[in-house]
Amino acid sequence: MKNIEVCLSPELLPFYEVNDKIVIVIDIFRATSCIVTALACGVESITPVAEIDECKALQAKGYLAAAEREGDQVEGFDFGNSPLAYLAADIKGKKLAMTTSNGTKAIDMAKKMGAKEIIIGAFLNKTAIVKYILEKQENVLLLCAGWKGRVNLEDSIFAGNILDELLIHFNFSNDACGLARSAYHLGKNNPTRFLTDSSHFQRLKNRGRMDDVVFCLELDKYDFIPVLKGDILTIKD
Amino acid sequence: MKNIEVCLSPELLPFYEVNDKIVIVIDIFRATSCIVTALACGVESITPVAEIDECKALQAKGYLAAAEREGDQVEGFDFGNSPLAYLAADIKGKKLAMTTSNGTKAIDMAKKMGAKEIIIGAFLNKTAIVKYILEKQENVLLLCAGWKGRVNLEDSIFAGNILDELLIHFNFSNDACGLARSAYHLGKNNPTRFLTDSSHFQRLKNRGRMDDVVFCLELDKYDFIPVLKGDILTIKD
Repeated sequence: MKNIEVCLSPELLPFYEVNDKIVIVIDIFRATSCIVTALACGVESITPVAEIDECKALQAKGYLAAAEREGDQVEGFDFGNSPLAYLAADIKGKKLAMTTSNGTKAIDMAKKMGAKEIIIGAFLNKTAIVKYILEKQENVLLLCAGWKGRVNLEDSIFAGNILDELLIHFNFSNDACGLARSAYHLGKNNPTRFLTDSSHFQRLKNRGRMDDVVFCLELDKYDFIPVLKGDILTIKD
Repeated sequence: MKNIEVCLSPELLPFYEVNDKIVIVIDIFRATSCIVTALACGVESITPVAEIDECKALQAKGYLAAAEREGDQVEGFDFGNSPLAYLAADIKGKKLAMTTSNGTKAIDMAKKMGAKEIIIGAFLNKTAIVKYILEKQENVLLLCAGWKGRVNLEDSIFAGNILDELLIHFNFSNDACGLARSAYHLGKNNPTRFLTDSSHFQRLKNRGRMDDVVFCLELDKYDFIPVLKGDILTIKD
């Protein structure tokens, strides 16, 4: 039986081996929800980058570009970090560059550490993720992007939800699994209510972005998996 | 109302401010349980050190010395990391030096980062800790020692237990509080059973140290608080 682990913050990633693992990057509010949505809306590919300068350089080459810092869209870019913006935009067949506070940095770290495969998870494509893990039968690391190094509740409950569906099929091989599952179990009947006091929820609410919160918690709106191939994210065949 | 936060691993401590906070260091299996027990058994003071060499140097100066790595007692030292060993030993009025894999390193980090005050928490002195926090009304950080940078379940549920008792008296100001409280709530009716699959529990069980596990989960055996003054831990007046 293969192992599944949870890493609650990218800052703890150096304590994990990733070479033999599929790493599932999770940043519910909002980067991985954005990635899933933008691909669903027809962008050809997404290039996640860690720094704003890299994102600007790709924009100069003709990419659409999304940049977020401190929860806000960075001036001069086409998108911030709201998945809803992609629903209304004309993005079909275009290339998108993206940098966010936490999510794209987590992708970058997993890549630099040599993850066997990097895929993107969100509530929006949860069942597709679960099916993929069950089908592949490889060791898995659920990597929560958190907020500036700290753990967060929404990424953790998503990890807990995935674990719950894999209960009899994988070994849960670290204590972070227990924390994620506990939070998921307490929150599952009403995740929105459970997350009310969490830091990211409050941050988005204060910015008038409850529409993003509601959208990012929608379950299984899309049925595909974004995968990192070289430097770009595309829909897995 | 003052704030209370949880840090699930010392590796995440750099993302927290500690200058204005009482830091409660938690390493249930077993360093903070050892510290509480050794002081209860009459040692005059405990000098926590991060490295084995420092511990050996103090031993050469006449201190009793405790050293643990990978869960085992290091050769040449008087104690390892079992609290039970202090119950039977003649340690009254003596000075003890101590180094462990996680707990003493967490104390060292909190000290170097300039914590306002550092106190030591365990199930063995839980109510004394709660009373002290309520009485002081300062900002508090519950610092879980974890295991080699990773989070662990027993430190987290202890943090969750403390939070639960402070519910209406403090603001819970980060998401790690939610994770710790969730785990505590799921585990509180039978903590030993809840921890069965956790990594530290398994490690101690495999070493035949279930007696340590049972002892470390005993509630309120002692009614005092160890506090760091300069380089040494003593019983708070």
